[in-house]
Amino acid sequence: MCSSSPGHQIRNKQCVLESPKLSWSNKLDVRYPPLSPQLLNSLAPEENTQCQHGLYFQDGERRVDYILTYHIKKPSSSRSNRQSSRFTDNAFTRSLRRGTARLGRPPPPQPRVVPEVASQDHSMDYHEDDKRYRREEFEGNLRDMGLELEKDEDTKTPGVGFVKIHAPWHVLCREAEFMKLKMPTKKVYEVKQCSGVGAKINTLVNKATEPLHPNVEENRAQNVKHLSYAFSREKQHFLLGSGVYTAAYPLHDVSTHCNQHLLYEEWASYSVFYKYQPIGLVRKYFGEKIGLYFAWLGLYTQMLIPASLVGVIVFLYGCATVDNNIPSMEICHPRNNITMCPLCDRACNYWKLKEACGTARASHLFDNPATVFFSIFMALWAAMFMEHWKRRQMRLNYEWDLTGFEEEEVSDHPRAEYELCVMQKSLKKEHKTQKVLIAYSWVFTIGVTFAIVFGVILYRISITAALHMSNNPTTRSNVRLMVKTTAAIINLVVILILDEVYGAVARWLTVLEVPKTDKSFEERLIFKTFILKFVNAFTPIIYIAFFRGRLVGRPGSYLYVFESYRMEECAHGGCLMELCIQLSITMLGKQLIQNNLFEIGIPKLKKLIRYIKSKRRTFQEEEREKKLQRYETDHFLEPFAGLTPEYMEMIIQFGFVTLFVASFPLAPLFALLNNIIEIRLDAKKFVAELRRPVAARAKDIGIWYNLLRGVAKVAVIINAFVISFTSDFIPRLVYQYMYSPDGSMHGFVNHTMSYFNVSDFQDGKEPMDPHHLGYQVEMCRYKDYREPPWSNTPYVVSKEFWAVLAARLAFVIVFQNVVMLMSDIVDWLIPDIPKDISLQIHKEKILMVELFMKEEQGKMQFIDSMTPCDGKERNNHAPVARSRSIPHTYSHTHANNF
Amino acid sequence: MCSSSPGHQIRNKQCVLESPKLSWSNKLDVRYPPLSPQLLNSLAPEENTQCQHGLYFQDGERRVDYILTYHIKKPSSSRSNRQSSRFTDNAFTRSLRRGTARLGRPPPPQPRVVPEVASQDHSMDYHEDDKRYRREEFEGNLRDMGLELEKDEDTKTPGVGFVKIHAPWHVLCREAEFMKLKMPTKKVYEVKQCSGVGAKINTLVNKATEPLHPNVEENRAQNVKHLSYAFSREKQHFLLGSGVYTAAYPLHDVSTHCNQHLLYEEWASYSVFYKYQPIGLVRKYFGEKIGLYFAWLGLYTQMLIPASLVGVIVFLYGCATVDNNIPSMEICHPRNNITMCPLCDRACNYWKLKEACGTARASHLFDNPATVFFSIFMALWAAMFMEHWKRRQMRLNYEWDLTGFEEEEVSDHPRAEYELCVMQKSLKKEHKTQKVLIAYSWVFTIGVTFAIVFGVILYRISITAALHMSNNPTTRSNVRLMVKTTAAIINLVVILILDEVYGAVARWLTVLEVPKTDKSFEERLIFKTFILKFVNAFTPIIYIAFFRGRLVGRPGSYLYVFESYRMEECAHGGCLMELCIQLSITMLGKQLIQNNLFEIGIPKLKKLIRYIKSKRRTFQEEEREKKLQRYETDHFLEPFAGLTPEYMEMIIQFGFVTLFVASFPLAPLFALLNNIIEIRLDAKKFVAELRRPVAARAKDIGIWYNLLRGVAKVAVIINAFVISFTSDFIPRLVYQYMYSPDGSMHGFVNHTMSYFNVSDFQDGKEPMDPHHLGYQVEMCRYKDYREPPWSNTPYVVSKEFWAVLAARLAFVIVFQNVVMLMSDIVDWLIPDIPKDISLQIHKEKILMVELFMKEEQGKMQFIDSMTPCDGKERNNHAPVARSRSIPHTYSHTHANNF
Repeated sequence: MCSSSPGHQIRNKQCVLESPKLSWSNKLDVRYPPLSPQLLNSLAPEENTQCQHGLYFQDGERRVDYILTYHIKKPSSSRSNRQSSRFTDNAFTRSLRRGTARLGRPPPPQPRVVPEVASQDHSMDYHEDDKRYRREEFEGNLRDMGLELEKDEDTKTPGVGFVKIHAPWHVLCREAEFMKLKMPTKKVYEVKQCSGVGAKINTLVNKATEPLHPNVEENRAQNVKHLSYAFSREKQHFLLGSGVYTAAYPLHDVSTHCNQHLLYEEWASYSVFYKYQPIGLVRKYFGEKIGLYFAWLGLYTQMLIPASLVGVIVFLYGCATVDNNIPSMEICHPRNNITMCPLCDRACNYWKLKEACGTARASHLFDNPATVFFSIFMALWAAMFMEHWKRRQMRLNYEWDLTGFEEEEVSDHPRAEYELCVMQKSLKKEHKTQKVLIAYSWVFTIGVTFAIVFGVILYRISITAALHMSNNPTTRSNVRLMVKTTAAIINLVVILILDEVYGAVARWLTVLEVPKTDKSFEERLIFKTFILKFVNAFTPIIYIAFFRGRLVGRPGSYLYVFESYRMEECAHGGCLMELCIQLSITMLGKQLIQNNLFEIGIPKLKKLIRYIKSKRRTFQEEEREKKLQRYETDHFLEPFAGLTPEYMEMIIQFGFVTLFVASFPLAPLFALLNNIIEIRLDAKKFVAELRRPVAARAKDIGIWYNLLRGVAKVAVIINAFVISFTSDFIPRLVYQYMYSPDGSMHGFVNHTMSYFNVSDFQDGKEPMDPHHLGYQVEMCRYKDYREPPWSNTPYVVSKEFWAVLAARLAFVIVFQNVVMLMSDIVDWLIPDIPKDISLQIHKEKILMVELFMKEEQGKMQFIDSMTPCDGKERNNHAPVARSRSIPHTYSHTHANNF
Repeated sequence: MCSSSPGHQIRNKQCVLESPKLSWSNKLDVRYPPLSPQLLNSLAPEENTQCQHGLYFQDGERRVDYILTYHIKKPSSSRSNRQSSRFTDNAFTRSLRRGTARLGRPPPPQPRVVPEVASQDHSMDYHEDDKRYRREEFEGNLRDMGLELEKDEDTKTPGVGFVKIHAPWHVLCREAEFMKLKMPTKKVYEVKQCSGVGAKINTLVNKATEPLHPNVEENRAQNVKHLSYAFSREKQHFLLGSGVYTAAYPLHDVSTHCNQHLLYEEWASYSVFYKYQPIGLVRKYFGEKIGLYFAWLGLYTQMLIPASLVGVIVFLYGCATVDNNIPSMEICHPRNNITMCPLCDRACNYWKLKEACGTARASHLFDNPATVFFSIFMALWAAMFMEHWKRRQMRLNYEWDLTGFEEEEVSDHPRAEYELCVMQKSLKKEHKTQKVLIAYSWVFTIGVTFAIVFGVILYRISITAALHMSNNPTTRSNVRLMVKTTAAIINLVVILILDEVYGAVARWLTVLEVPKTDKSFEERLIFKTFILKFVNAFTPIIYIAFFRGRLVGRPGSYLYVFESYRMEECAHGGCLMELCIQLSITMLGKQLIQNNLFEIGIPKLKKLIRYIKSKRRTFQEEEREKKLQRYETDHFLEPFAGLTPEYMEMIIQFGFVTLFVASFPLAPLFALLNNIIEIRLDAKKFVAELRRPVAARAKDIGIWYNLLRGVAKVAVIINAFVISFTSDFIPRLVYQYMYSPDGSMHGFVNHTMSYFNVSDFQDGKEPMDPHHLGYQVEMCRYKDYREPPWSNTPYVVSKEFWAVLAARLAFVIVFQNVVMLMSDIVDWLIPDIPKDISLQIHKEKILMVELFMKEEQGKMQFIDSMTPCDGKERNNHAPVARSRSIPHTYSHTHANNF
């Protein structure tokens, strides 16, 4: 502890807290009332020893802050490969040097796998001796840095040695200073409550929402202690990469483990699904990076509530108005019994428009003016969500005292794999071939996706054709729905399988690229995975929305691919209905199967297997397991695999919620339901099923925010196209204002259909059974804007076609620019920093400066009274002045961060 | 000085430099080689006293850092209004308290005018006694804060009293710490030069560009001294507002004034127009805010070079291909002598298409495929410019040690006027009426702009009509050009006058709104001025580009406004030609008249007047003037009026360069020529004609960056519309790929013109002189896509019209999204922080940490050797350890900022 060595007092800046116990109780939090005694107790190690063994060194005093594990083998050979050893030493020394410079960096998400290149070239050289030698050197270095180590090779876990590391107070202080952690000062101020009506409303709101808040007293004061876990990740990561150690992790903490019922009961439980998350506690236990993830997920879920409400209202509006919808009424009306042209050559027959009645009515649910409003609403919702997240992030930064913390953006240290590659002179030569390889892989991957989409389309076409040929009318009427549904399910299965494949492909591609730093590796990997998974999830949907039913030709000259397969057409109500089916199946299926089945089911299965196994075990073994040290039980948990999959899942969902929301207003509701489960599921996983992740500091969610912004931007243009091209919104408008004789929608159905003279069928293309409807057909109708047979230029696209097209394009331009402008205005109107936070920051700064000025004046007076004395006496009194200046140093540290 | 009082040593953090002279020579700059002796000399005040008098207190030792002036009058009445005095005291105390908290803020741009509200209510209460009393209290407060003051009421300038303020070293130190200025440390490291081929190329490039660099040795070490000028602006500003003092300004500095030949010769001179600016020196003399303006202006001018090069090439391409342009060839060809319909009812006659030959050829200069390429290029250029500015800003931040400096964004202090308004209880009541007033003013202002535009249009229409009626053929042939030119000139004059009016209107509107803080006042004012000036400058241009010639009707049923005025039509080549004329006249005129005439001419005129006046003066007076103290001469210079007009001018120019670049590829060239003069002009103004502005810190150019981004965004969509709607690019494409029989442009002119049967003229609309062309006209042609007289629906818009419209709209969508995507990619590819800077920052951090670690180890050893001694001895040795710890504190201060 700092105060134990009196010489430390000189470093009044570095070691501002005299002793942890003394300081934590003396110096109170700047913003909060005094700490609860329970929390203070948890900070004094002595009183918690009864809680669980294995959390302390054998003296029972020093806490185990970090664990390193390694394999124990009997020394097999003593000749060590000089060459390899020298190389590693160099790299090691460099890494150490670098490590000292960058202790405050967020860690790589997990102990990483030994890279293939490295293991291929060096695995044979890594003899046990060499490893032990390097371990010893490394541990020596750790000791030099002031850490205290204890080895335990004699555990109940055979073959695994443990190095327990304890970071003493002065090391923590030094590292905390490096990381610019903020310290609470003596000064306490009350957060001013707003007065008057506002305050009363506030109290009422607080009372009303009280059941929504978790029963957790959120205090923050532990940050210095907790966060310094990050102290030596750099070097360990490097050494883990070379296989010298097998794992590195901090322990599930006793002080929090004893409080684990809090996290368990108030967070990682389905019974509290309606409550806010205890984010402060999560952050205290897991660090800022994971805390931010859950805060983000929480805000996203919260924001989904209004979106799903409006979505449901839009859907209900569709349901309510389906009987007043003139176009579908006209289609269903028996009087307007229009004879339609066959939908394919030869095999298909003439049909009555009335048959499309059901589809037309169903289409109205998703294709009504309210969906236009809803997609504008959702675009603004996305902008609002971004803004709110910025504000929430700012608030968390303030509450977690991160306002001054700046992440080292660019100057990351090179990855071990990169150094290896650079060292091998062959890199330059390989680089070219690799680039070609990467390009090919990209092309191949994207190609596979499109091929699969095309395959599913072909399946649909052929099945439709086959079933159309069947003469059974009931079969035929069920054809469409069945084909659509099975095709969507096949698509879903393909998507699920490819999702896993693409994850591996993205990692492989990134490894090929040999990015220089860990951060760039992670970002490239995320970006690639995102692109691939996004293409995978949305290609079939985009096909249905924008390409299906576009280039079908016309009766008598339908367009064919591969000679016999006709291009697909949409049902009479437009493709929106099918888009909706595809969307809901993909989204629900992905969520149910990928998230819930995989994430709930597989762990349950594993538990079951473990249970069955344990039945077979002897009583003795079980007894032994009970007495395992904490660091041994933790060793058996699964390692933390990073937040990437969690974020990825959510961002794809965000895509479903925003991209095609014009065609599926229920998407936000489904997302909301999924996320309510997801939060608690993830919480359970983190609390109980994973090794405790190394706490990492982060100010923001990094690349994910940019990806979210990207999705939100793309959403605007896609929604514009869905409304104007996939739905019948624009044709209806054009008809109403340009062609309708009485300004109503009556006659719209007739207007959208062109005439075809059956005598214009070429040989072999007329229906096999022309009298199917019971009468001779002379003129049939089809849905398109083409000139009638009696015009000068029969069957070419008509003026109406171009007018509608122009209107559609104009709508896209107007929609896109209006929504972008509105998003910019939202962005501009909502300040990035919440007002109360900025006021509080300002207030704090004033208080700090006041404190500092007072301090200085006091000192001045003190000096003035001292000046007549001689130098000797001044020196003797200096420490007094110094101790008085401590609060100033505090205040300065604090003020520094504005 | 710090070291003069030994007690100061305790504050080893605050006062890290023992004494200025000692420290500047001892502690070397982190990045640069040791300071040149010449600069060191300029830092030691004693050696420069011979340079100019009036820069020091009467003891000749202490330098005058700041000047306050006030009016001297004989005390007229001693009864002071208690009420008013109390109010002011309160406000004053508050402002002081606030001031202490916010010493490091950038200042309001200038000593501000007494607000009307305040002066109306209180001017009668401000008696001299009261003012003197408050001056005394204020000066007492300044003395309490450690400043040293000297009064001089007995100057040669009658009626003006001067308060000279000197900030002693320890005050500067304290303020520097508040502002988190960075200090150079002992540690020096060499910036590593890149080796190999890169280095050689670098050397070559450096040699080649050497004449472009100004002959200035750029060193930076003075920042602490220089920047602390900002020490007490807050309070002074408040007091200036109440009329207690009349002016407040720092002096044109002796140390730099002696070096003024440097700034004069290497910066503020037209003879160095081809050189880079000595930005470091500018920043040293004027502070970061003004330094950033000139850096920005420099980069903008630099970036204009490639843009104008490409623009000239595009223009030359137009010139070169004008003879191969098939449409204009067809128009000019005597064989295709098509009879055109009259352009107005009755008064106009039939005319031959050949008459439009000249316009058509000229139009081709600005309406060819190269302009499409050029507008894409300019959109990307704008994105590149933004990115480069971000990088340049980052580099300057690094070089000027601003990387850790964070501006106080939100918590600005309320303006005095705001406080006054809040104090008057009437505010609430007034607020509603004011809001209504503001809304009305906005409407009125915008209304006036449009009215004026409309007026100019009417002028054009009526003159055209009048001249058309004239029978003189030569007059008529000159009609168009003359009308266009005079109209554009009238427009320009109106724009210039309105520009001045709008500046006042914007200020008035902002004052009405009573913004809370100075910063928000400034930003609102800028935003309003920008909107008004932008609307003013671009409304006529937008009218020509998008509205003129759109709704003209057709021969026989031309559209009329106010019964007798026809809507204007464009010449046969499209409106692009006229747009181009309007653009060039507005842009050139604005630049020549507003910038150069106003900015060069008026100061010259003033000088002339002054010279004539001085001729009349007696020799004695002249002699007296020569002996004026420095602070007196400075008092006669014009006060610094903020950077807003300079930025505004440039951003409007940026609008001309980007917004309509599709129609005027020479705009960047004109802008470049203007800016080369502008830089030196502004430089001269700042160096010689203005009082020295208070140095202000700034990390970025603030709201201007956002406005630039906004203009760049709007530019994309406007260019898309100009290309697709104003130019004939899309109709040509549509013709070539949809209608042309042989895929060439032959027949395009014929295709764009519809037929009109002269027998369809209603009574009174046929031309007065139908035989003007010498033959009986039966069918005439006009430029539009309408059905011919022989169709079923004569004269309604044809299918071609809709097809072309759809193509135009599709082009807008494609262009906008492609360009936005490309801009985003540019944004994403170019890192915001230049790589060398990020490497250097990283390196510095490592060095700092190394230094710190060494320091600590040394201290540890020292402590270990000390531990056996008793407490008394330890205290005696403490100062030694402390002095050793100074570099550590340095390093920490430095490392803090990453």
